[in-house]
Amino acid sequence: MPSVTDLIDRLESDAAADRPDESTPDVGIIMGSDSDLDTMQGAFDALDALGFSEQTDHADPPEGRFSYESYVVSAHRTPDLMYAYAETAEDRGLEVVIAGAGGKSADLPNMTASIAFPLPVIGVPVQEKSVDSVIGMPTGAPITAVDAGKSYNAALSAAQILAREYPEVRDRLEELHDERREGVGDVSAALHDLGVRGFREREE
Amino acid sequence: MPSVTDLIDRLESDAAADRPDESTPDVGIIMGSDSDLDTMQGAFDALDALGFSEQTDHADPPEGRFSYESYVVSAHRTPDLMYAYAETAEDRGLEVVIAGAGGKSADLPNMTASIAFPLPVIGVPVQEKSVDSVIGMPTGAPITAVDAGKSYNAALSAAQILAREYPEVRDRLEELHDERREGVGDVSAALHDLGVRGFREREE
Amino acid sequence: MPSVTDLIDRLESDAAADRPDESTPDVGIIMGSDSDLDTMQGAFDALDALGFSEQTDHADPPEGRFSYESYVVSAHRTPDLMYAYAETAEDRGLEVVIAGAGGKSADLPNMTASIAFPLPVIGVPVQEKSVDSVIGMPTGAPITAVDAGKSYNAALSAAQILAREYPEVRDRLEELHDERREGVGDVSAALHDLGVRGFREREE
Amino acid sequence: MPSVTDLIDRLESDAAADRPDESTPDVGIIMGSDSDLDTMQGAFDALDALGFSEQTDHADPPEGRFSYESYVVSAHRTPDLMYAYAETAEDRGLEVVIAGAGGKSADLPNMTASIAFPLPVIGVPVQEKSVDSVIGMPTGAPITAVDAGKSYNAALSAAQILAREYPEVRDRLEELHDERREGVGDVSAALHDLGVRGFREREE
Amino acid sequence: MPSVTDLIDRLESDAAADRPDESTPDVGIIMGSDSDLDTMQGAFDALDALGFSEQTDHADPPEGRFSYESYVVSAHRTPDLMYAYAETAEDRGLEVVIAGAGGKSADLPNMTASIAFPLPVIGVPVQEKSVDSVIGMPTGAPITAVDAGKSYNAALSAAQILAREYPEVRDRLEELHDERREGVGDVSAALHDLGVRGFREREE
Amino acid sequence: MPSVTDLIDRLESDAAADRPDESTPDVGIIMGSDSDLDTMQGAFDALDALGFSEQTDHADPPEGRFSYESYVVSAHRTPDLMYAYAETAEDRGLEVVIAGAGGKSADLPNMTASIAFPLPVIGVPVQEKSVDSVIGMPTGAPITAVDAGKSYNAALSAAQILAREYPEVRDRLEELHDERREGVGDVSAALHDLGVRGFREREE
Amino acid sequence: MPSVTDLIDRLESDAAADRPDESTPDVGIIMGSDSDLDTMQGAFDALDALGFSEQTDHADPPEGRFSYESYVVSAHRTPDLMYAYAETAEDRGLEVVIAGAGGKSADLPNMTASIAFPLPVIGVPVQEKSVDSVIGMPTGAPITAVDAGKSYNAALSAAQILAREYPEVRDRLEELHDERREGVGDVSAALHDLGVRGFREREE
Amino acid sequence: MPSVTDLIDRLESDAAADRPDESTPDVGIIMGSDSDLDTMQGAFDALDALGFSEQTDHADPPEGRFSYESYVVSAHRTPDLMYAYAETAEDRGLEVVIAGAGGKSADLPNMTASIAFPLPVIGVPVQEKSVDSVIGMPTGAPITAVDAGKSYNAALSAAQILAREYPEVRDRLEELHDERREGVGDVSAALHDLGVRGFREREE
Repeated sequence: MPSVTDLIDRLESDAAADRPDESTPDVGIIMGSDSDLDTMQGAFDALDALGFSEQTDHADPPEGRFSYESYVVSAHRTPDLMYAYAETAEDRGLEVVIAGAGGKSADLPNMTASIAFPLPVIGVPVQEKSVDSVIGMPTGAPITAVDAGKSYNAALSAAQILAREYPEVRDRLEELHDERREGVGDVSAALHDLGVRGFREREE
Repeated sequence: MPSVTDLIDRLESDAAADRPDESTPDVGIIMGSDSDLDTMQGAFDALDALGFSEQTDHADPPEGRFSYESYVVSAHRTPDLMYAYAETAEDRGLEVVIAGAGGKSADLPNMTASIAFPLPVIGVPVQEKSVDSVIGMPTGAPITAVDAGKSYNAALSAAQILAREYPEVRDRLEELHDERREGVGDVSAALHDLGVRGFREREE
Repeated sequence: MPSVTDLIDRLESDAAADRPDESTPDVGIIMGSDSDLDTMQGAFDALDALGFSEQTDHADPPEGRFSYESYVVSAHRTPDLMYAYAETAEDRGLEVVIAGAGGKSADLPNMTASIAFPLPVIGVPVQEKSVDSVIGMPTGAPITAVDAGKSYNAALSAAQILAREYPEVRDRLEELHDERREGVGDVSAALHDLGVRGFREREE
Repeated sequence: MPSVTDLIDRLESDAAADRPDESTPDVGIIMGSDSDLDTMQGAFDALDALGFSEQTDHADPPEGRFSYESYVVSAHRTPDLMYAYAETAEDRGLEVVIAGAGGKSADLPNMTASIAFPLPVIGVPVQEKSVDSVIGMPTGAPITAVDAGKSYNAALSAAQILAREYPEVRDRLEELHDERREGVGDVSAALHDLGVRGFREREE
Repeated sequence: MPSVTDLIDRLESDAAADRPDESTPDVGIIMGSDSDLDTMQGAFDALDALGFSEQTDHADPPEGRFSYESYVVSAHRTPDLMYAYAETAEDRGLEVVIAGAGGKSADLPNMTASIAFPLPVIGVPVQEKSVDSVIGMPTGAPITAVDAGKSYNAALSAAQILAREYPEVRDRLEELHDERREGVGDVSAALHDLGVRGFREREE
Repeated sequence: MPSVTDLIDRLESDAAADRPDESTPDVGIIMGSDSDLDTMQGAFDALDALGFSEQTDHADPPEGRFSYESYVVSAHRTPDLMYAYAETAEDRGLEVVIAGAGGKSADLPNMTASIAFPLPVIGVPVQEKSVDSVIGMPTGAPITAVDAGKSYNAALSAAQILAREYPEVRDRLEELHDERREGVGDVSAALHDLGVRGFREREE
Repeated sequence: MPSVTDLIDRLESDAAADRPDESTPDVGIIMGSDSDLDTMQGAFDALDALGFSEQTDHADPPEGRFSYESYVVSAHRTPDLMYAYAETAEDRGLEVVIAGAGGKSADLPNMTASIAFPLPVIGVPVQEKSVDSVIGMPTGAPITAVDAGKSYNAALSAAQILAREYPEVRDRLEELHDERREGVGDVSAALHDLGVRGFREREE
Repeated sequence: MPSVTDLIDRLESDAAADRPDESTPDVGIIMGSDSDLDTMQGAFDALDALGFSEQTDHADPPEGRFSYESYVVSAHRTPDLMYAYAETAEDRGLEVVIAGAGGKSADLPNMTASIAFPLPVIGVPVQEKSVDSVIGMPTGAPITAVDAGKSYNAALSAAQILAREYPEVRDRLEELHDERREGVGDVSAALHDLGVRGFREREE
């Protein structure tokens, strides 16, 4: 296993490699602990649904045009790794970072946004009690945030940013949205037309 | 299954049909998601207890004089359906709408109240965290709300409005109230006269 | 000055007088203390804007068809007056009661709703800290509430109930609503077309 | 089963009977619903531990000098029963009332305190969310309260009031307190002298 | 000025003096800081209104039968003085203690209640943020509390305890209560009979 | 003044005009009321500092390449204007919308994000109590938000999105950031090197 | 079992024994109840990981240089034991005290800090609701606190104080920190290099 | 004025200079913004009261043995300066750091504690809303905190740490404490002996 220092070196050498935009991950997903993975799974699910691939080697891109990568980065246990990740993010080709953290001192999203600026960072409070800490940035130090646990939405928001440049991402967002909309329509008609009892029976 | 657009067309054609008051649903129950149904069940239970029927086809009323209908309407996933429902509500013959929504951005009751005005809308916060969002309307944009999860009470409140015009609804409300009152009396006498231990033994 | 006991007697004799609906107040406004009057003023303002008159003598109605009356009724300092007010409310010809109370134990709206049932009662929490106490009724004991301090909206909601029966109240609600809507339109066009600086200069 | 009206008549006839102090219950325990009984059980336990008896018939006292009685009294479903209970409490010989209620509109303790004044009433918020409603009385309308669910302490506080007059109650309070104190001492010495591991082993 | 140690000695010698009940203060009022005095003033006002005198010398009682005394006692800056006050309270002839403290660690009421047990202690949270700390006692360590800042009510509650033994205190409580009740009646009749505008004009 | 209906027509005709990207506003700033303008001023200030111009006529762009426009749009008083604004936003050439709203039911940002999807919308809670309502969107309906009142940061975040495509926006963001950073450096050195007293004297 | 009075005597005789620093416990761990032990276990775990021994007899030190001891001390049920523990703490050779308490009136840490001053006391709120009570000390009465339940961190903080004097404690803290840091590195590399799916498969 | 980069270089060269303990500052005080200075003033006041000097040049110590220094360090606007400060803190001779920050994302104390570990860091939440963010550290990443705004107490706590090694600091802490204690005694005796009215008159 690489040590933390090895990882920092790797990030810096990725950044120096100056790889073409098409071959680097577009979205970086980081989280403060692997115990946050269940909550952050939504981000992976959304990006998968939008047709993104996961890139597990910076030097060896997957086939699809759009990809994401993920790291565990702890603000309090590995501040140097956090610093290196944020500082190299733009040079490593990322277009947007999704950063999730739990607890009442959820510093990872904020510190990453401060260091990686002007790269956009979307904060995901992993717990309800993390919302204040993630959202509460002072004037001049921007972050945008989604609600507690809403990593799925964070990934949609990241894709909305990419969609300004890439029409295929925009199209895929619309398709996904329409599916969701028709899902509501189905259930709405069923509840009304079958009546509550009929609807409940059908659900069983 | 009808698409969302079909449902919107249907609501508009119901509104245009100009059916007689006796044949249209009196109470409209909407909720932001079918996952709210367990919480909203109280509204159905209360209306059933008051002798209301469920109307599942706007063109084909049930036998009883008083009826309700229900739809799933998502403010955030189907804003156009929400808009159409609220805009046609009064023309479709509804006298009062009960709107339930969960989450911290429980916009459905408020938006419905704003669009359907001056039809009375009673908001049901589906979760404790939905209360602020449902109740917090600005001056000039009224909604009334019940407490989190109290869909049963919302239905009683809806019936209280109808009772101003319809003595039979008023009578049924009083009967239901008296049953509840005597239920307290029974348990009160039992606790006192049997003593705590005796009462607990009886309960087992 | 009449004593509290005199007031109770008066309420009971009003109730017994069986006066015709047109000559009794339609909306009763009560508040826990005269220190709540500034907050409750909104209810008077809204009803005035809707063309309601104030009735100061139950035996001597004002000229207009629709009217309101007001009393100070303290749940904790005059529980017997509260009881009498709520118990006689419907017989005194009221169609809906607006009850405002402050503090963390804002019992007046809830107790009034419980005693006056099935007459609709709209609770106005006079302070933010009164919201929970006003809204938190148990299943089977309905109240509807507006947000803290929103007595203006409570009066609109009361009028929405009356509007189910009385088209002239409904019409007046729509007019008031349209005025408000056009007020937003004016300010929106001004902000856009003059630009922020121009708009601010105009406001000065 | 007696009806609610029967219960009210009974309370009034108890009050009129003018029975001697020794034969009437000293502590009245009321609660808003029998679903509060598990939380209110602590009051019964404490009074039992202090040697009080339960009196289940006002006309037929138990053997011991000190006794309590209990009723279910709902502020919102049986306001008239609540009113009658509070109004007759002192005449029925009670020295102090313990009133428990749940929900956010926990009006029973407050209304009882207001009506039964100057009899001392100790409020028990049955849920955490009931604390504000129970404690928040306006100036001039006193209640004292214990923390959420602390019905055991409410009973001790009731006994502390009785202990001002009755040395035997005071003595029993001290004995109970000493037992509790020595219980802490035992566990403290065990933790220290056995060490954490030893202590945990002993506990298993 | 006496030192803190002098004060402790004084309290102990007061306790040892074994003075007759009639000549010792009945109510002890303590507060964590003299900055709490404005909030605690209500307790003095209420006791004055009930005819109590202030006793400023334990050896030299004032003329009236009922009296109170007051000390500043800081749990965190003078824990030994707090301990001595609570430990000697009953022996010094007090019947009930009113203890006020501010801040989030309002320990004075709780510690006093724990040490002075079984003497009743009524806690007054001096600030809203002190409520939790004052009310939150564990099972077996009772305190009763009033709402934040409600020192006036704490004094009424103290008097309610004394009223169980002393009919003249009970009578004075009832008189005070009736005055307050009629005050509500006056304002209620004025608001109704003059109408809102007339009432406001009168108030100016 | 144009009526609300006129404004809706105007928005739709702007959208239909299909103007070139360079001549349409890049950032749309909307707010629920002109009383929100002081809080939203930060967004104007930040965009001004980044060299954006204000566009007050959709058909007549200002000189600079980057521009913003603003409207007052009330979700509850002008739901149709809100709907039209959100529905036409992308066709009117906007790249990102900043939507501010106050109160506890701050529905404007959420509804706008739902209707304008997939255009990115950044919500600005105008008051602390608006945060929950703005941020709390359900899965599948994304919004990103800044903290209460942080309209300045919302504008920076909007620019960060534009900076992905436009290097000149990115450069200007970096310059602004460096100024801020050196401002901290100046004050830090002054505090340290002058000492607290010296620093305070200099500030006076 | 020794009585509480025996324990107080023991503490005082320990303090008088004037044992050499090397033979007395360095860290005292106290908690309000043995029900707090599961939460306080973290402190024991951390000190064990740092090589501290548990001292179960003040007269008979364990082999290692650094040690801790523990007692159950209830502020509300054994105020005299609390007083004696705090007053003798420094004389008994403790360098720092870790005090944990639960409930909303978590007075033990604060009172101990006040009495044991100037010995450093680190407060551990055993429950979330204990945080305010533990942290909220007035000016001049210092305590430092960790977050709810973070007894492990409290022990690290205690060791950080000892580390100022004892380089071996400092070294052991660094080692423990490095282990934790490399743990993050391992999991970070695994998540990235295996991808989410691969990582999850490995975890199963 | 030195640039931020100059400051970082200065900190690193201070650290490399390896100056003797007696000549380096003992307490480092940092704050996120100079707008925090009024709140942090308490720390300076307490250290001044304890006889500490301010050191404004690392190479040129003041006369007294004990000293402090201060810097403004912004986690979000100068993350590199924060990193450098924390990383060099121990090598620059500091024994303890007091770090204050405001806002809901008060990251400075936490990040400093994480980077400077095992140097003790005491966090000062500059606002009430900063408490959660400062105190909420995860297991293994310790910080201790004082209550919002309690910078004075943070300095006392820092001195309590130093007092473990330096008896003169310990003595000065005791003197300061005694002054405070006697201040309470004076006011307590005055309130009691003069009575409330007399006391108030004296205060005027």
